[in-house]
Amino acid sequence: MTRLPEHASTDRAELDRLLDGSRVGHFAFVLDEQPVVIPSAIARDGDTVLAHGSTGAGWMRRLADGRPVCLGVTQFEGLVVARSAFESSMLYRSAVVFGCCAVVDDPVEKRSALDLLTSSFLPGRVAEVREPTKKELAATLVLRLPLDEWSLKVSADYPEDPADDVAGPAWAGIVPLHASYGAPAPAPDLSTGIDVPASVRALVDG
Amino acid sequence: MTRLPEHASTDRAELDRLLDGSRVGHFAFVLDEQPVVIPSAIARDGDTVLAHGSTGAGWMRRLADGRPVCLGVTQFEGLVVARSAFESSMLYRSAVVFGCCAVVDDPVEKRSALDLLTSSFLPGRVAEVREPTKKELAATLVLRLPLDEWSLKVSADYPEDPADDVAGPAWAGIVPLHASYGAPAPAPDLSTGIDVPASVRALVDG
Repeated sequence: MTRLPEHASTDRAELDRLLDGSRVGHFAFVLDEQPVVIPSAIARDGDTVLAHGSTGAGWMRRLADGRPVCLGVTQFEGLVVARSAFESSMLYRSAVVFGCCAVVDDPVEKRSALDLLTSSFLPGRVAEVREPTKKELAATLVLRLPLDEWSLKVSADYPEDPADDVAGPAWAGIVPLHASYGAPAPAPDLSTGIDVPASVRALVDG
Repeated sequence: MTRLPEHASTDRAELDRLLDGSRVGHFAFVLDEQPVVIPSAIARDGDTVLAHGSTGAGWMRRLADGRPVCLGVTQFEGLVVARSAFESSMLYRSAVVFGCCAVVDDPVEKRSALDLLTSSFLPGRVAEVREPTKKELAATLVLRLPLDEWSLKVSADYPEDPADDVAGPAWAGIVPLHASYGAPAPAPDLSTGIDVPASVRALVDG
């Protein structure tokens, strides 16, 4: 059920679809000769991937110093149920990006990057909230990883059982996994009379 | 929308819940001083995490040689929508495990580990399929990573906006993300008269 029959792809549009549909990536880096992996919100910006975090976060400062990083982004999209356990696997798309992060210093570029990160999670939200303060911007580190060196794997869509198994009694097929947003829950300290905003309504209505 | 206000937890039961509910992990390791991250199916087995793959897969052989690894497992479970972009974040649970993988060589233990991996994806499936062949077992490498050194982060459940923002007009709350299996699609080469098995029906019915 769990092997990864990997099918490499060099299709940049397919990479972009995966990244644009992914909210979280895993950044790996080396610290004192040891591997470290950290999850982070991500958003694609053209030929780069953006990430951000607190200037006080140790892992952000590690990534920011230009050391080599490896970003893994995986969408688990269901099960490929074969006639045997051996041939069964996951329905998935996965990308690995190698490179070094650059700090986004320019104020205009930084603001635009943060807006893009917000929009990738919740389209329309930027227009509904106040401007970030100078203090908030100063407390935020924005990183940009170029999409220069990457590899992309897309799972087979159906199991490839040997003829003996195909002739047998076991079922085979795909079970897709779907993700969807549920009913929004207002914060306990929300003032009365404030409606769910258009951005959230659009996200939930899908 | 995308920062990670991290709340560390040392609750082993919470770690187990995260791992038991996660199908995919990201293994990081160092190769020629460069970080590499690889997604893999995982399943918790007591105080360890199991992974497996083809003996022909380069990344499996790297992990199998006992070098230090770091496993990241993250569940993205929704949005924490604050009154500002700055305070907004993700609803998530995330674990990082440090250690070295051991190869599961003992035939009985290896078979049991593979059954557990299959069952973690599709409970009941092991009893529905034929036994693995000797050739299949020989072609599969099973790894076990101990849960000795780990850290766990669980996001805040509601935004923590400053008083000025709480008094303002913007909405705040949570938008949960749910994943569910959809209708199974039979393989194109499935013989007629073979029904969807009980394991798949139970998975889809939730």
